[in-house]
Amino acid sequence: MLAVPGSSEEWSIGLRDYISHKPAGPERWDFLERLLPGKLSKDFVEALKAVVGRPHVSTATVVLEQHGRDESIHRCQPPDVVVWPQNVEQVSQLAALCYREGVPIIPFSTGTGLEGGVCAVQGGVCINLTHMDRILELKPEDFSVVVEPGVTRKALNTHLRDTGLWFPVDPGADASLCGMAATGASGTTTIRYGTMKENVLNLEVVLPDGQLLHTAGLGRHFRKSAAGYNLTGLFVGSEGTLGLITATTLRLHSAPEATLVATCAFPSIQVAVDSTIHILQAAMPVARIEFLDDAVIDACNRHSNLNCTVAPTLFLEFHGSERALEEQLQRAEEIIQYNGASHLSLVKKEQYSQLWAARHNALYAFRALRPGCKNYTTDVCVPISRLPEILVQAKEDLKALGITGSTCPLLGRALALHGTCTGEHGIGLGKRQLLQEEVGPVGMETMRKLKAALDPRGLMNPGKVL
Amino acid sequence: MLAVPGSSEEWSIGLRDYISHKPAGPERWDFLERLLPGKLSKDFVEALKAVVGRPHVSTATVVLEQHGRDESIHRCQPPDVVVWPQNVEQVSQLAALCYREGVPIIPFSTGTGLEGGVCAVQGGVCINLTHMDRILELKPEDFSVVVEPGVTRKALNTHLRDTGLWFPVDPGADASLCGMAATGASGTTTIRYGTMKENVLNLEVVLPDGQLLHTAGLGRHFRKSAAGYNLTGLFVGSEGTLGLITATTLRLHSAPEATLVATCAFPSIQVAVDSTIHILQAAMPVARIEFLDDAVIDACNRHSNLNCTVAPTLFLEFHGSERALEEQLQRAEEIIQYNGASHLSLVKKEQYSQLWAARHNALYAFRALRPGCKNYTTDVCVPISRLPEILVQAKEDLKALGITGSTCPLLGRALALHGTCTGEHGIGLGKRQLLQEEVGPVGMETMRKLKAALDPRGLMNPGKVL
Repeated sequence: MLAVPGSSEEWSIGLRDYISHKPAGPERWDFLERLLPGKLSKDFVEALKAVVGRPHVSTATVVLEQHGRDESIHRCQPPDVVVWPQNVEQVSQLAALCYREGVPIIPFSTGTGLEGGVCAVQGGVCINLTHMDRILELKPEDFSVVVEPGVTRKALNTHLRDTGLWFPVDPGADASLCGMAATGASGTTTIRYGTMKENVLNLEVVLPDGQLLHTAGLGRHFRKSAAGYNLTGLFVGSEGTLGLITATTLRLHSAPEATLVATCAFPSIQVAVDSTIHILQAAMPVARIEFLDDAVIDACNRHSNLNCTVAPTLFLEFHGSERALEEQLQRAEEIIQYNGASHLSLVKKEQYSQLWAARHNALYAFRALRPGCKNYTTDVCVPISRLPEILVQAKEDLKALGITGSTCPLLGRALALHGTCTGEHGIGLGKRQLLQEEVGPVGMETMRKLKAALDPRGLMNPGKVL
Repeated sequence: MLAVPGSSEEWSIGLRDYISHKPAGPERWDFLERLLPGKLSKDFVEALKAVVGRPHVSTATVVLEQHGRDESIHRCQPPDVVVWPQNVEQVSQLAALCYREGVPIIPFSTGTGLEGGVCAVQGGVCINLTHMDRILELKPEDFSVVVEPGVTRKALNTHLRDTGLWFPVDPGADASLCGMAATGASGTTTIRYGTMKENVLNLEVVLPDGQLLHTAGLGRHFRKSAAGYNLTGLFVGSEGTLGLITATTLRLHSAPEATLVATCAFPSIQVAVDSTIHILQAAMPVARIEFLDDAVIDACNRHSNLNCTVAPTLFLEFHGSERALEEQLQRAEEIIQYNGASHLSLVKKEQYSQLWAARHNALYAFRALRPGCKNYTTDVCVPISRLPEILVQAKEDLKALGITGSTCPLLGRALALHGTCTGEHGIGLGKRQLLQEEVGPVGMETMRKLKAALDPRGLMNPGKVL
């Protein structure tokens, strides 16, 4: 495979091999390092500039490093170049260019991921989509909106303020909505409004070769469609490994007429879980229900200035009309008392956001508990019936390991209990081994076939998920 | 390609070519027809019998014809043989056998489809899954149940009667739940409880080569998972073209404490639609809301003994506590009167099932209107904002064509209005051309790549969807 440097054919083969397959040996590596600016040829970078315009391409070290990590503990793995396309046509041209040259692509928006999904493990071109930040089409009477990748959850809800509608999926961070679609995000309101899976109606995707796909057909926004394979569902949660999401059509919901938040301290985890099951079985339209153990409550009290009893606790939020809320509250109170807890504490309206912010910031609260220590975050889902068991075991495990932590059942255990290794963070880099254990060899083989079918050259966010 | 009959090699090659690719010329066809029982070799049929037992295989003409059609107008296209496996291991062995010999497979359960999805367009083996009719695992506290393909919607709900839970997706017919997963069914309760897409948590699938896949991992039943590609979502609605669904894990819901049904006659379609939008915007937890135009109402009055005013009409159903229902009803009444309708008519409890049955039987009501005529049924989805427009246009089209019909906007028009060509019936045979118009060339190419990746020999329910 080694050839004499200098011949133009070798040049181009060498470049592609180098970038997509890594060099064959150290000699080759050295030879390329000497000749290329960074890892990509000058010509290639010039071609990128020709597509998006000179000011929208950067190879500055500090920029590359900003784009090589997210909010997780995964080490920074910078791309070779960052580009900021201004529209979908440019994204399409960039993809076609990378496809032709065999260069990996890593999509980037807010960088708020928690599993290293943006790390450029093979280098390549990071496509920063934040300049595409238009709300393309709002149809209040159809409960739908089309957004570009630069539009974040909070920006959309601010835009919707006067329409009586909102987008409820809330993973905590002010993430890009297209990024949330890419990772299949969910959050505290899942119980009532579902995850991204249930709220994405259509996606505009630039495929690896630059072709444009509308997963549910061009301009369509339907919840109730059975037209062919569910491409929307396949791309939601694919973490940029099958294509680049350049627009997302979302299902909107009516903003609740009134909101009521309450907390409840429980004598044990078991009682908290039993109460949760009973509340759900009573078909109460709870909007959020979150469990926090005593350690989390303690950390939140200190870090976020809460004043909660240090005990296993539920945070509850109800949405509805004033009268419906009154009734829901009364029923929740009955259920909780029946299970042996004392009562619900109503939270004042002006403290709602403080309470949920405290929940979302539990991570930082824990960090603050042991300054100088690194923290490791993760998420799991278990069937609710197994929750008490897994939480008690996790506490014992953490104690035995001398780790400060909470509500974080160990992953191996989650799997043994038929849980899943990720509820909302995605697979990214961090959980690939666990995915294999979870879906088994046939599941992995099936996923690999899909990846090979849609991204045969393996250029889309390589090294992730599979 | 033609060879001398009698050599054993030619025998086996000939058989495969014949079955999977159709014969090369008429000579070959004749030669095979003479020698084979039906279109499959005796040895092959014996091999099927060895897997499922002699009594569970049939080549009787009447049986084949029963399995060659569904409830649609598509002409009967019988398979060459019908087999009734008793368990998933047998299904797996059947698939492996067909894969080896290149014989098409068509899954069959209740035969209640409406798009010809069971027609054996290339002949082959029809796998009737109705003998696998166990409810494998019910976990009330996790709101989940695992069912085999022989379990129908009504059978499950009867089984759940005393648990306080139910499965709400209701396409009208008493279809198999696995069949509903395969076609991505929905129904009148979609607005509150979603379609099959939102209610299938995991699928057990026998892949074309006989391997067993659990789309969300073995034994897992989670709503909130982001573990790798969404295989569950891909197989829901794939209409048996990617594999055979042998078990489905479903999300259950709490049975409503109380139910209230009302009808409302409107002076015009526009007023009915405006009222619907306002009811949805008020975030009222409506469980069902169905529009029937004056022609449907007239047919239902005659056929199903209803006594409704002949006018554009909404059928509404509310679920909740007694107090919540009272409030919802009052609000709905306010909205309707604000829009210029007179009032809601409450339906008596004992007439609920009659009313919804009338709606589901609108098809037969229409058939009865013109005895001797064939009827053509279809379904579309349009954004609710375009509904008045499309209904008025459809009525004019039907009148111009001299067709008795109703609430059936023409498909081409639905597409032009950014609708979809199917809400719940699937693609099957009947709508393949329309699917192409809807998802476009890149969408079709992407679907074809997925099909080729998972069913490279093209044996799973061939000729459907794509």
